[in-house]
Amino acid sequence: MTEEILRDDLRFYFMSPCEKYRTRRQLPWKLAVQILKIFMITLQLILFGLNNQLVVSYKEENLMAFKSLFLKGYSGVDEDDYSIAVYTKQSVYDSLHYVIDQYSQLGNLSVGPVSYAEENEKFLPLIICKKSYKKGSTEPSKEVYDIDAELETVCLTLDPESTKTWRMNNASFFELDFYRLVDIETTFTLKGINLQTVRSHELPDCYSFFVKILFDNSCHSGKVKLTLDFEAVSSVCKNWKISGTAQKSTHYLLIFDGFVIVVCLSSAVLFLIILWPVSVSFMCHFLSLQRFSSFCLENYNQKVCEDDQREFLNGWYILVIISDVLAIIGSILKMEIQAKSMTNYDVCSIFLGTSTLMVWVGVIRYLAYFEKYNVLILTMRAALPKVLRFCCCAGMIYLGYTFCGWIVLGPYHEKFEGLSRVAECLFSLVNGDDMFPTFAEFEQKNTMVWLFSRAYLYSFISLFIYMVLSLFIALITDAYETIKGVGTECGEAETIHPSVMLCCCKRYSI
Amino acid sequence: MTEEILRDDLRFYFMSPCEKYRTRRQLPWKLAVQILKIFMITLQLILFGLNNQLVVSYKEENLMAFKSLFLKGYSGVDEDDYSIAVYTKQSVYDSLHYVIDQYSQLGNLSVGPVSYAEENEKFLPLIICKKSYKKGSTEPSKEVYDIDAELETVCLTLDPESTKTWRMNNASFFELDFYRLVDIETTFTLKGINLQTVRSHELPDCYSFFVKILFDNSCHSGKVKLTLDFEAVSSVCKNWKISGTAQKSTHYLLIFDGFVIVVCLSSAVLFLIILWPVSVSFMCHFLSLQRFSSFCLENYNQKVCEDDQREFLNGWYILVIISDVLAIIGSILKMEIQAKSMTNYDVCSIFLGTSTLMVWVGVIRYLAYFEKYNVLILTMRAALPKVLRFCCCAGMIYLGYTFCGWIVLGPYHEKFEGLSRVAECLFSLVNGDDMFPTFAEFEQKNTMVWLFSRAYLYSFISLFIYMVLSLFIALITDAYETIKGVGTECGEAETIHPSVMLCCCKRYSI
Amino acid sequence: MTEEILRDDLRFYFMSPCEKYRTRRQLPWKLAVQILKIFMITLQLILFGLNNQLVVSYKEENLMAFKSLFLKGYSGVDEDDYSIAVYTKQSVYDSLHYVIDQYSQLGNLSVGPVSYAEENEKFLPLIICKKSYKKGSTEPSKEVYDIDAELETVCLTLDPESTKTWRMNNASFFELDFYRLVDIETTFTLKGINLQTVRSHELPDCYSFFVKILFDNSCHSGKVKLTLDFEAVSSVCKNWKISGTAQKSTHYLLIFDGFVIVVCLSSAVLFLIILWPVSVSFMCHFLSLQRFSSFCLENYNQKVCEDDQREFLNGWYILVIISDVLAIIGSILKMEIQAKSMTNYDVCSIFLGTSTLMVWVGVIRYLAYFEKYNVLILTMRAALPKVLRFCCCAGMIYLGYTFCGWIVLGPYHEKFEGLSRVAECLFSLVNGDDMFPTFAEFEQKNTMVWLFSRAYLYSFISLFIYMVLSLFIALITDAYETIKGVGTECGEAETIHPSVMLCCCKRYSI
Amino acid sequence: MTEEILRDDLRFYFMSPCEKYRTRRQLPWKLAVQILKIFMITLQLILFGLNNQLVVSYKEENLMAFKSLFLKGYSGVDEDDYSIAVYTKQSVYDSLHYVIDQYSQLGNLSVGPVSYAEENEKFLPLIICKKSYKKGSTEPSKEVYDIDAELETVCLTLDPESTKTWRMNNASFFELDFYRLVDIETTFTLKGINLQTVRSHELPDCYSFFVKILFDNSCHSGKVKLTLDFEAVSSVCKNWKISGTAQKSTHYLLIFDGFVIVVCLSSAVLFLIILWPVSVSFMCHFLSLQRFSSFCLENYNQKVCEDDQREFLNGWYILVIISDVLAIIGSILKMEIQAKSMTNYDVCSIFLGTSTLMVWVGVIRYLAYFEKYNVLILTMRAALPKVLRFCCCAGMIYLGYTFCGWIVLGPYHEKFEGLSRVAECLFSLVNGDDMFPTFAEFEQKNTMVWLFSRAYLYSFISLFIYMVLSLFIALITDAYETIKGVGTECGEAETIHPSVMLCCCKRYSI
Repeated sequence: MTEEILRDDLRFYFMSPCEKYRTRRQLPWKLAVQILKIFMITLQLILFGLNNQLVVSYKEENLMAFKSLFLKGYSGVDEDDYSIAVYTKQSVYDSLHYVIDQYSQLGNLSVGPVSYAEENEKFLPLIICKKSYKKGSTEPSKEVYDIDAELETVCLTLDPESTKTWRMNNASFFELDFYRLVDIETTFTLKGINLQTVRSHELPDCYSFFVKILFDNSCHSGKVKLTLDFEAVSSVCKNWKISGTAQKSTHYLLIFDGFVIVVCLSSAVLFLIILWPVSVSFMCHFLSLQRFSSFCLENYNQKVCEDDQREFLNGWYILVIISDVLAIIGSILKMEIQAKSMTNYDVCSIFLGTSTLMVWVGVIRYLAYFEKYNVLILTMRAALPKVLRFCCCAGMIYLGYTFCGWIVLGPYHEKFEGLSRVAECLFSLVNGDDMFPTFAEFEQKNTMVWLFSRAYLYSFISLFIYMVLSLFIALITDAYETIKGVGTECGEAETIHPSVMLCCCKRYSI
Repeated sequence: MTEEILRDDLRFYFMSPCEKYRTRRQLPWKLAVQILKIFMITLQLILFGLNNQLVVSYKEENLMAFKSLFLKGYSGVDEDDYSIAVYTKQSVYDSLHYVIDQYSQLGNLSVGPVSYAEENEKFLPLIICKKSYKKGSTEPSKEVYDIDAELETVCLTLDPESTKTWRMNNASFFELDFYRLVDIETTFTLKGINLQTVRSHELPDCYSFFVKILFDNSCHSGKVKLTLDFEAVSSVCKNWKISGTAQKSTHYLLIFDGFVIVVCLSSAVLFLIILWPVSVSFMCHFLSLQRFSSFCLENYNQKVCEDDQREFLNGWYILVIISDVLAIIGSILKMEIQAKSMTNYDVCSIFLGTSTLMVWVGVIRYLAYFEKYNVLILTMRAALPKVLRFCCCAGMIYLGYTFCGWIVLGPYHEKFEGLSRVAECLFSLVNGDDMFPTFAEFEQKNTMVWLFSRAYLYSFISLFIYMVLSLFIALITDAYETIKGVGTECGEAETIHPSVMLCCCKRYSI
Repeated sequence: MTEEILRDDLRFYFMSPCEKYRTRRQLPWKLAVQILKIFMITLQLILFGLNNQLVVSYKEENLMAFKSLFLKGYSGVDEDDYSIAVYTKQSVYDSLHYVIDQYSQLGNLSVGPVSYAEENEKFLPLIICKKSYKKGSTEPSKEVYDIDAELETVCLTLDPESTKTWRMNNASFFELDFYRLVDIETTFTLKGINLQTVRSHELPDCYSFFVKILFDNSCHSGKVKLTLDFEAVSSVCKNWKISGTAQKSTHYLLIFDGFVIVVCLSSAVLFLIILWPVSVSFMCHFLSLQRFSSFCLENYNQKVCEDDQREFLNGWYILVIISDVLAIIGSILKMEIQAKSMTNYDVCSIFLGTSTLMVWVGVIRYLAYFEKYNVLILTMRAALPKVLRFCCCAGMIYLGYTFCGWIVLGPYHEKFEGLSRVAECLFSLVNGDDMFPTFAEFEQKNTMVWLFSRAYLYSFISLFIYMVLSLFIALITDAYETIKGVGTECGEAETIHPSVMLCCCKRYSI
Repeated sequence: MTEEILRDDLRFYFMSPCEKYRTRRQLPWKLAVQILKIFMITLQLILFGLNNQLVVSYKEENLMAFKSLFLKGYSGVDEDDYSIAVYTKQSVYDSLHYVIDQYSQLGNLSVGPVSYAEENEKFLPLIICKKSYKKGSTEPSKEVYDIDAELETVCLTLDPESTKTWRMNNASFFELDFYRLVDIETTFTLKGINLQTVRSHELPDCYSFFVKILFDNSCHSGKVKLTLDFEAVSSVCKNWKISGTAQKSTHYLLIFDGFVIVVCLSSAVLFLIILWPVSVSFMCHFLSLQRFSSFCLENYNQKVCEDDQREFLNGWYILVIISDVLAIIGSILKMEIQAKSMTNYDVCSIFLGTSTLMVWVGVIRYLAYFEKYNVLILTMRAALPKVLRFCCCAGMIYLGYTFCGWIVLGPYHEKFEGLSRVAECLFSLVNGDDMFPTFAEFEQKNTMVWLFSRAYLYSFISLFIYMVLSLFIALITDAYETIKGVGTECGEAETIHPSVMLCCCKRYSI
């Protein structure tokens, strides 16, 4: 008797929304909530993304403008991981003075609404610091050096309003001892207003740009690398007046965000409620289940039911709950950003993005109720253990190649310079990308390394593309064949023995 | 009896041209018309394309020439989506004056036969407009601004013949308030003659170039973007005289186009006629068909005939009719273009191109009459439902990744900047293209996003290339195996039971 | 009886060299000749290639040097299909005068041993010709033109020794009417000596460079394209003296080439001799063969022997003979080149290259005698008919896409500019190459075309990569399975029924 | 009886560590040593790599700095295989004098701690040598030359301290006869100190840079190629004093390296010991084994045991021993490098890298003890013979295409310039990389070669991607199916007949 009831409960638990409606006239609340959620979360993401894009382009263009203004001879494109490099003493001095000159006449130069930052009615000064070894004398010719490795930092401040006699007064600072100089760091703060938002009927924000220009000589290799970077922080402007346009109220956006939170909360609660009694009954009827599964084993001599028991803690439900939690956190962060009490777009976008990804993946669950739509999921579930085990083995070889490539080829090839880069390069090679350039960029200077690189690349690519990838296809094809076979048997079983169907087939129909 | 006749009708309806000739001595009119159509449509497309190419190269070279003439410091290659960017006030003024100077001495500069446009014996002037916020004062230092967001446009015209004192008289216009300036738009009209067509014995056309040079400061980021673009409109020259060469008559081309239209019309009509009685008889004999299919079901216990009934509204015939309609519209547009009463090449080329694509695809239908040639079509038809269902599921994951990638990685990677770009980038990654560059272009500046990007890319690529694509191959292989099995059974059936053949096999032989 | 003998003959005909030696003690002459041929032809190809490389690099560097010397503002890299483009009248004049100036002081400029060509003790002059429409007046402003389309060519010669007053005397020539100018062609001849061969102990050759500099204004689009090209012809120097080094005799090379010809000839003759009697006997015993095949059909009720009869005209033998003929022609051409009576390296290299390719492919024949090595050939032979039929169908769709892409996307995308380029681009896309760049290079200027391009690319790529390529794999897998099955049956048959083996198995063992 | 014992021995020999522990309570020494080894070798490799990176970046940046200092007009990027090319006599003189000028004022120019090398308290001079043909007069106009091919070298030294009158005194040296000049080689030695290591608490090393600047005119083509290269040798500085920082003792590193050597030695010895008795017993019991295998053959009529006998010389053990030996050699070399008695990082990194690769691959062996993890290895082992045979055949075609492509397309396409490049290019094409660029880079100048290139590329790509790669997948799928079948049979056999299991199954469980 208990068994019967339990079986009914289980059957209902695994039913599709349509079937539930048909059997117990239960309206598909969950489905409706999910569909609403998908639309709302996607809409929210798009709104946030469009807003984000404006901010990003404003920052990027400002960075570009600053580089063009402050770096002498800047070509518009960064070299490697620095902006520009200089090689002679004179060009270091020139570049340094260029920064100071451009800074002091910023008002006449810059096209954009930027100016020096102010604090207590006074302009914040430019700070220029040179870091060098405390003592240092090197005589490379005699292979002699005497160094005090402690770093000594000398700083100077420049008030943008009084630059006339400044350089003359501080001439001694600009006599650089290159042999002990480590770096020169110039920092200053500029303020800007992002006026473009006026046109989309939003309030312009004020930005503080903490600009840092670094002359890096720490390698002492005769190459001084110049880098310009800034941190941009936005805030509500202190005093503003806008006329001639209807200011778009951001209240609606906040209300929308709030509504998203409510929907996600209700979705999460719904699924928690559903999981709750089942979990409890799962605990209670554990004994009967044991009997149930032994019943299966008796009749069919297979351990088909083990998976079903795990099924109660349904992966899909957990996915939905996690995505809801992420969406709620993301929405709260978004509201914080809109209220200017937070400026970190990245964290918020990761939360929103991940939740949207999960919500869309969750749609497959509903598609899978239509019998023929679950080929992808079933095959992936069937293939997954094999694939993971297989990846373990292939991963070992991959790791070996990664280490080996990094150590041997690193000094000769840009793509092998860091461990993560090597991994990415090899991953791309496996998928047939960037193969010829990888081959070609090795110079034939060092014959031994050149030969090694050929052996390394040919063996790796052949092994992975021809053996590993082909085997992958074989694994998946095999899993697909299995699924097809089971599906057929399952379909036959359905007509004959409904009580077993629950145990052996439904596993595949979630 | 009726059944017998119907069966005969049906058999004839599905017969190949050869068989029809053999059984009823019917000449393959349709086939002949189709072959004629293929040749004519392809020839027409090639003629149009070659003509189009001349026009396109003329426009492109003119655009290039104008950019080189009017943009100061233009390097020959556009940056991003603008031609060149300037960062200082002085360079904005210089670029602006450069445009005006070059324009006023165009006659002495340009190598090509271009000159100012004339209307009523007077040169059309250059118009220069600056758009700015009505009122605007910003003090970034104090985080204060006061803006009237309504846009105010001030314009000035410059007669190319009297430029001497012009700039002095309008000095005030050139005092730009950058903090409220939104953009400066310079527009002028030039006239040119495409003389190169003389050599291919065609009449040269006259072109009007509506040139627009935009100084875009709408972002107020300190970067002013310059863009030069034009709209080129061709027309018959008003007054012309050509000697020394036989002018090629364009009449022949028009006649050819007319002939194409006739052929396409007759093809369309032919197929409509064929479809007509069958459709009617299909309606009439619906009852007997019902009996027919029940006859099938009785004897073979399968629902093999359902598809056949749908077959009457044959996909191929519809394809042919659509392609005919497109070709006719395209040809008419082409004639309009030749008569210079239309200049939109794009619409015409889309019509002609699509119809040619369909006509060539339609050739497969005739190949499929040879039994062994229809593997491709049969397999595709057999695999299609599975593949579409499968794509639905994979599409959900794909959509999720698209949204997620756009929002999180958009600000850090050029390829993730727009939703359609993300979709394209992911599509390329699935097919093994541009993988290493996608990995490499992420700067390791923001560690969190960098880590996310790795997880995102590795998971996406692995999932799609190793799981989804492999499963795709499994699906197709499976469909192919099914087809082969059916084919064999079909082949056997053919010798034994001709009456059934119609129902169970012919489905595969169209 | 006759049948018995014939069967023996046939068996011997299909035997591998080892078996032949074992059964009739026949030494493997053919095999030995083939091995010798492979080594000799490959060696000859490498020698020719290394020699070719020297010549090619000499020509290329000279071309580069001439471009740098004669083209004003040349950056070192060609733009598109011309070297450099100019856009203003002044820059055309400057470039033209630059050519003449640089030419007249060539002796002081050039680093290499080049000088003006001489004929009959007199320097050949530089010839400068301008081609223009006979009459021409255009008034683009009024849309009026009056052109005499006949071309008029005016030429001028410049003696390199008397340039002082030349330009003044010919000032009128340099007053160009750009509106009717079609092009300016400057031609001159220089002589050079390829001294680098001295170091590889070969005699330096003398070269004549027929240089042509073209100012192309035929498009009349405001862009004048400059192209420098030359034809380099080598010859034996008229008078030479070399000391201090042993001059390497080129006689040995000629002898080697002769030997190659002999080997190839004997190989060709050998195979012709072998084919001869079999062909004759094939003709004679045609009747008995008919009986023979009927015997097969009787006993096995299959038409297995048809292919065998075709086998007599063995594909391999024909391959060998063709490759021999090509090698002989190539060797003769190579000797001609060495004797300086021919300078066309390309024709010779195509003959030598194709013959080498065929010789190496021919090696597979001998590998195939070892039973397990012929999987590749058998599978390819089994799959070929299916694959070809399949390609026919896929080719139609491909053709349709090619035409459609060319006409619609051609004006907007570099890769779709010519029909052959479109075919190549689509071919690359099918194989997963250059996908993202193809997507990305479409400007979003024309929305309609942009949308079309998306539909076009997504549909093409999906169709071909996911459907067509997957079906390809299915075809090959199927063919492989068939081969494996036949192989096993064959192996079993071998022990049981030797007389049938000939007919049903040997087909697979060539 | 002996058979029984032998069988037990064998069974134990093939047992996994877990089983061994369960049956004989033997602790898994080997496993522990292996795990320790993996961690230590990987750690050692990473430490070496990080250290290596510092040295490499120091050398690279110095090379870059020298190129920028000494090569006139250097753009920052090397052209092809030289740094910069000049085409006129004047620019050769300028570049030459630039080198000398920059060298003589190096102290005032260079930002880094480099200076002239000293020996015996005297600066080593710059040496400038010009190599030219002993006698040479060419008159290209008359096709006449007279050359003494012996090379004559004239040298000059420049003391960096006395450069004032030097050039005037040696004016005659700088009158170059370009027609007989082969090259000019400027060599000098600079000393530098790698101060950046101070910050990672290591002692700075002294470097000698043997700089060589070559003006290469050996091709006499009018293009003089400039190359700057150096050899950098590091050594312990002669006299040093460091204060203000705790100098990191390198002793710990040496001890660590020593420990690695000990672990590797013990691992190697362990495996040698294990192999020893088995090998001996293998020899001794050869007869019984013969009986044993005949026993197998009797009962199962298959030659399943042959492989098992070979198994005694287990591939895995040999892999471990080789990797140990490589690691030991690598560690010794690393210690040598740390002691500055060797500077060749490459050899050391190849040894360390290869050993690490092997160690990681060796991990698979332990994974394979878990029954389901050995799919990869089993499939690869099963497919290997077929794949190799298959590669032989495909390799012949590949070779043919390589030779053919090199000779015909070499002069027209950069990617076909050398034999190894052609092989790499074709390999990339097979894997779907760089296809469109390969097609596109052929100029349509020479129609015949252009057509040939199309036929060549289309045929090669189609053949290899569609036929060969698909067949590869078929081979692997087939091998996988076989393995799966055997695995199942094996699993069944296990329950029934333990004595046979040893012979037929264990083969797959190593």
